[in-house]
Amino acid sequence: MDTQQYDFGMIGLGVMGRNLLLNMADHGFAVAGYNRDPSKVTSLKEEAQGLQVYGTSDLKDFISKLKRPRALMLLVTAGPAVDMVIKDLLPLLEPGDLVIDGGNSYFADTERRAEELTPKGIHFIGVGVSGGESGARFGPSMMPGGSKAAYDVVRPIFESIAAKVNNEPCVTYLGPGAAGHYVKMVHNGIEYGLMQLISEAYDILKRGLGLSNDELHEVFKTWNEGELKSFLIEITAQIFLQNDDKTSGRLVDSILDSAKQKGTGKWTSQCGMDLGVPLSIIDIAVTMRYVSALKKERVTAAKVLPGSTPKFNFNGDKQAIINQVRDALYFATIAAYAQGMTLLKVASDTYKYELHLGEVAKIWRGGCIIRATLLENIRVAYHKNAQLPSLMVDPDLSALLLQRQESIRRIISHSVQAGIPVPGLSAALAYFDAYRTDRLPSNLIQAQRDNFGAHTYERIDTEGIFHTHWN
Amino acid sequence: MDTQQYDFGMIGLGVMGRNLLLNMADHGFAVAGYNRDPSKVTSLKEEAQGLQVYGTSDLKDFISKLKRPRALMLLVTAGPAVDMVIKDLLPLLEPGDLVIDGGNSYFADTERRAEELTPKGIHFIGVGVSGGESGARFGPSMMPGGSKAAYDVVRPIFESIAAKVNNEPCVTYLGPGAAGHYVKMVHNGIEYGLMQLISEAYDILKRGLGLSNDELHEVFKTWNEGELKSFLIEITAQIFLQNDDKTSGRLVDSILDSAKQKGTGKWTSQCGMDLGVPLSIIDIAVTMRYVSALKKERVTAAKVLPGSTPKFNFNGDKQAIINQVRDALYFATIAAYAQGMTLLKVASDTYKYELHLGEVAKIWRGGCIIRATLLENIRVAYHKNAQLPSLMVDPDLSALLLQRQESIRRIISHSVQAGIPVPGLSAALAYFDAYRTDRLPSNLIQAQRDNFGAHTYERIDTEGIFHTHWN
Repeated sequence: MDTQQYDFGMIGLGVMGRNLLLNMADHGFAVAGYNRDPSKVTSLKEEAQGLQVYGTSDLKDFISKLKRPRALMLLVTAGPAVDMVIKDLLPLLEPGDLVIDGGNSYFADTERRAEELTPKGIHFIGVGVSGGESGARFGPSMMPGGSKAAYDVVRPIFESIAAKVNNEPCVTYLGPGAAGHYVKMVHNGIEYGLMQLISEAYDILKRGLGLSNDELHEVFKTWNEGELKSFLIEITAQIFLQNDDKTSGRLVDSILDSAKQKGTGKWTSQCGMDLGVPLSIIDIAVTMRYVSALKKERVTAAKVLPGSTPKFNFNGDKQAIINQVRDALYFATIAAYAQGMTLLKVASDTYKYELHLGEVAKIWRGGCIIRATLLENIRVAYHKNAQLPSLMVDPDLSALLLQRQESIRRIISHSVQAGIPVPGLSAALAYFDAYRTDRLPSNLIQAQRDNFGAHTYERIDTEGIFHTHWN
Repeated sequence: MDTQQYDFGMIGLGVMGRNLLLNMADHGFAVAGYNRDPSKVTSLKEEAQGLQVYGTSDLKDFISKLKRPRALMLLVTAGPAVDMVIKDLLPLLEPGDLVIDGGNSYFADTERRAEELTPKGIHFIGVGVSGGESGARFGPSMMPGGSKAAYDVVRPIFESIAAKVNNEPCVTYLGPGAAGHYVKMVHNGIEYGLMQLISEAYDILKRGLGLSNDELHEVFKTWNEGELKSFLIEITAQIFLQNDDKTSGRLVDSILDSAKQKGTGKWTSQCGMDLGVPLSIIDIAVTMRYVSALKKERVTAAKVLPGSTPKFNFNGDKQAIINQVRDALYFATIAAYAQGMTLLKVASDTYKYELHLGEVAKIWRGGCIIRATLLENIRVAYHKNAQLPSLMVDPDLSALLLQRQESIRRIISHSVQAGIPVPGLSAALAYFDAYRTDRLPSNLIQAQRDNFGAHTYERIDTEGIFHTHWN
């Protein structure tokens, strides 16, 4: 086999790395894959029949097969493994080579790695890849950040393999440093929020209204034909039809109600707190995964703490309530995107990412887990006003919210009375209500702080910092 | 003046350091204070007439005045200033001396400093001090952690100056390492939660029910005579009476509704997320301070996003609604303490603090900002069962919650309909409702994660980890 014949290299042949590589090969690129574990290399080769794909467990051999300047991507577990691979790679690379980290690395790690590699002449790009297994194989959304010049080298490959919406690829250069991984982190934070909100809608429909799995399927399928159309609503509709191999019922009913996580939602919440950006919907989504994990405690508490029966008490039309749930979910979905996009705005100002939020919305419209028709509305909103302080005050999106505020108020009231926890919907409405309140009760908090701690306060009528000797 | 005659030294003579030192002098201890700024030393001396208080701006002189082994406390701004002072101190100290950090230091910094000082033979104690200016002067709650033997040296001083409840001092050795600063951090997190909840009750009473400041004073004064009795309710009642020097109205109405913060609430939230402990009430309290800071955006949004008028729509007795607000606030207050105490439980297990949660409740009953009669119930709950998984399932506290659940459901429904943001009350109820739900909708989240990311799931009927090839 000739040396230096491959356009792109992949280190880490787990499902994401393997699928991305096969996706590249499908698009006519000659690619090489490396994994320390030969069985992963075998799996790659089995799936790569008839494609220009080379696989090896020999790192030196792998590097020798790549065209210069080399372009290679790491898809290994985020964290110390990335640093270990880079350490192994460094003696084999030359100035001008490009290392791309395609994992869910923490943005501060990406900043650090770029700072370590740049003086050695190695280009570094952090790219967020979303779309799961299937997206990686047939078209992900990709969020690259780092050296613009280096990105231009791999841009043809990335644009070829990315998902397309209206023939436009769901990838674009986002900005310097860790811009790509930061955007991916926020993507995941929004994903947490949306999944929590959908689970609350499910809980209301199932326990509050008594819908069967077949009915739930129909409801979500119908919702996916309207303004809620999105990947998560689509798979939710499908999930309700999945039969359980082990019982005669549906699989969803046999799955344990303890949701796991890999930490990117938590990072988003913690970053929001560091930058002073309200992310209440994302925060509660992370928190509810923790509550879900307390299964044993919950089973005990269910006996100790009886309360309302989780049945909606309503007169009239069940379909009318279902439509209100749909409206409530759409309202809260807009609020969740608004929180995430505001974090990106503040992060971009803080870290000089120079993000174009409309471009972010654009590349999220396809390929990724949070793809949704709503992202086209969001793209347009930022296209009209790149400096929009919040999506909630965009004229079109604010109208969508206002049309649905009565529905979300009613659904929360019903749920609160029925004892069905709706912390995500409640956080969304409270965010909306607080944001549109010109006079919040926080004056009392400032008064308390000055009273007990002499922390001072500002006034509504005069500039300056004041302190009172309280009675 | 004789050398080595002083029992205790204080570095940093801001209001907290000065007042603690004067408190010690009041109790018969001979104390010395140091500040680089001579004007702070002058202030100390002016207030210390007739007491055994020495003040100096000369660090060597200060150190030379302390009895050996020396015991001295730092009350300087948390962060790098603490390290700088320790660096200046080290050449002047001897093995066996004790350095106490009395500021709001981040617990991980305290761990690090203890590790740095211990090999040098210097004892280190991190102590949380709560009670504000007045508490420091006349009886704070103090939360020491670190070397037990070293604490025993200063214990007589600490027990003398601490607040007393039933003649018992509001200070006790909490545990090794940063136990003291961790407990103080969580104290402050709970404080954020309680202040947010009180501000929501204020908003409901003022905007929802139209109460005047005089009426608000009466309501909070009455509440402070019942189960809500606490420092924060007490000062809230007082605040409504404070006249404004610049207008003919009450000061609270002239204070800007942008609440500031010093970061300890944020730390608590971030630590909760790191340890997987739900802290939704504290999280939203931190977040609402961020929302409050967006004053200009809110004023704009108030025009763009009209909604419900913030007036409660109710039939009958206003006093009945006021009582429901009281019940809702008490319910949520219990939930806020429950979240904080659970964080302490998990942190104690994680960091080996060996905390006795009943002792923590005990020393919080007096002196500190979150002192409340409820803390006696909490002390008793942990006294009965030190391993209580949550305060919400203690027989007595659960009864208090159950008696008030109808009230909080009604108040949230009213507020949600009226467009008054009640994210803290909503978070409290959702936490209660989720915790008492044996089957949450998180099975759907696990199904989604397995569907798009092959993240696997557990089952309700069989042990193990499962993955499905979804239709």
